[in-house]
Amino acid sequence: MVLLDQTRLPSEEVELVCTDAPALVEAIRSLAVRGAPLLGIAGAYGVALAAARGFDVVEAARALEGARPTAVNLAVGVRRAESAYRAELAGTGEPTAAAVAALAAARALHQEDAEASTRMAAHGVALLDELLPGGGHRILTHCNSGSLVSGGEGTAFAVALAAHRAGRLRRLWVDETRPLLQGARLTAYEAARTGMAYTLLTDNAAGSLFASGDVDAVLIGADRIAADGSVANKVGSYPLAVLARYHHVPFIVVAPVTTVDPETPDGASIEVEQRPGFEVTEILAPQVPVTGAGGGIPVAPLGTQAYNPAFDVTPPELVTAIVTEEGAVSPVTAEALAELCARSRRATIG
Amino acid sequence: MVLLDQTRLPSEEVELVCTDAPALVEAIRSLAVRGAPLLGIAGAYGVALAAARGFDVVEAARALEGARPTAVNLAVGVRRAESAYRAELAGTGEPTAAAVAALAAARALHQEDAEASTRMAAHGVALLDELLPGGGHRILTHCNSGSLVSGGEGTAFAVALAAHRAGRLRRLWVDETRPLLQGARLTAYEAARTGMAYTLLTDNAAGSLFASGDVDAVLIGADRIAADGSVANKVGSYPLAVLARYHHVPFIVVAPVTTVDPETPDGASIEVEQRPGFEVTEILAPQVPVTGAGGGIPVAPLGTQAYNPAFDVTPPELVTAIVTEEGAVSPVTAEALAELCARSRRATIG
Repeated sequence: MVLLDQTRLPSEEVELVCTDAPALVEAIRSLAVRGAPLLGIAGAYGVALAAARGFDVVEAARALEGARPTAVNLAVGVRRAESAYRAELAGTGEPTAAAVAALAAARALHQEDAEASTRMAAHGVALLDELLPGGGHRILTHCNSGSLVSGGEGTAFAVALAAHRAGRLRRLWVDETRPLLQGARLTAYEAARTGMAYTLLTDNAAGSLFASGDVDAVLIGADRIAADGSVANKVGSYPLAVLARYHHVPFIVVAPVTTVDPETPDGASIEVEQRPGFEVTEILAPQVPVTGAGGGIPVAPLGTQAYNPAFDVTPPELVTAIVTEEGAVSPVTAEALAELCARSRRATIG
Repeated sequence: MVLLDQTRLPSEEVELVCTDAPALVEAIRSLAVRGAPLLGIAGAYGVALAAARGFDVVEAARALEGARPTAVNLAVGVRRAESAYRAELAGTGEPTAAAVAALAAARALHQEDAEASTRMAAHGVALLDELLPGGGHRILTHCNSGSLVSGGEGTAFAVALAAHRAGRLRRLWVDETRPLLQGARLTAYEAARTGMAYTLLTDNAAGSLFASGDVDAVLIGADRIAADGSVANKVGSYPLAVLARYHHVPFIVVAPVTTVDPETPDGASIEVEQRPGFEVTEILAPQVPVTGAGGGIPVAPLGTQAYNPAFDVTPPELVTAIVTEEGAVSPVTAEALAELCARSRRATIG
């Protein structure tokens, strides 16, 4: 498996080759590959890789789905390829045919995700036009949700990109997204490539933009959406939701239907990954020489303890709409989400 | 003038020697010396330095007070030493005596600021005990407001420190404070030296702490307080005020009376310093080798524009209390602040 190493962007475009599932697990943990939909695709291909190379597929699947706990798409992708493998193996008894089936499942997921991106973008732009009829949108986004997280053009970023192509995006405000700077490194990289007008800011400067009336909408992705509509996304999303509510600005979540996890009843049930403190106490960047224990340059005094949750949870009452490939849900309620998931299942079966 | 170079902390304790006012202006602009009360003290000593060395005192005073626009204390300190110089010169015609008078004024300000710290800490702890009678305070702070910003133990940090000494501080949550990481570098350094329990977090992780009920109060300093009670402080303070309001957590500003500027009627009249974009697009840390145009390591793509206000403004309706050396004001109203300033003037005259 050949991956674009996202930890090296934007300064270097380096390919990372994973020849087995443990290497992919490490790439997922180190965030070389990241973003909820892409994790699902990578997980499915990882199962196919283990199958093709004759490794223990069940063991590989468990290791892959446990590599990061919050994004539900990872487990969904892994299980889809694993199910295809098991079904073929049960039917034909042929490991080679089963490996081919796992690869076909991964490719199908990849293709569906690309198509879902396109449909999310269309639904998202329609929603923006409805909420903000004047055009000239100034959209604030957090973390990275473009083609780097997807088989297509992404989730929230894909909506901003579609608005840009339609001439209706005035500016994309890009939160730098501490601690790992996915906004500064990845979203700015994607925005620069598309030629849209964008401006980078520290996460805590977003408040000033809201106060001065320069944000028309917030668009973010999601790593897991509970059955009640609670949204887990990159840490820093929840403060934006509170600011958006205080300033009467729409807060819109864009994610494929697979991000909705009916098994997770509410926000309190979402497991939030706690990441190592050195991501906060040290500066980690592609070109930073390693001097600290965590692989970066220490900025805080030695021995400083850090609180470093990777995600936060936004309750449904702060979410204006959830946009999926099957359409938008607004207001966000358990019933509306369940109906959407049922529609999606019918479409898949049909 | 010998300053502790705050840009090198916490990894190195380096003294910076300023032999004239232009060198001090540069030290103020580069944030080698920073923090509202300390800027006032430094500015006053800078005037005394210019006077002692026989430079043009008026020119030095104008350069010093213009070095940074938002902190009102800088101009207050500069003008106090300058007035003492002018009064002595007008009276005696002796530049040497006038230089001595300027130095005496700077020393008096320094001493008063240290005493003000002690009194703010006492008033702050009393307020905390009133608002949170159980003790075991978990206090969130932003930027740096300890002995590094003051002739004494600081403003907001001095309150936390007094609570710690009284056995009533359970934990100090330290926002890292992007882009220049004054929390990670300076507040963590001061907290570590006092032995208090503290935990560092990215600014955007504060939302999760509020959501989980782990913040009992927010304590911050101020760079300027308008006559209506609007508070300019380090960017990221306003989002904390909105989060605090949403979660019914007290949001307390601690600052000497000199921070209140009766000449600034309201928040909209506060000039907010815009700092260079490279502070956001590049990683700046003491040990980071210089490779970018701004003196750090680029993290965002070349050509990325950044929005980098140094401060934001919190309106009085979001401020639970303003604690000064003359006591606390709560609720925060123009009338209550004016009364406080009048009391302070009477105390000074008395």
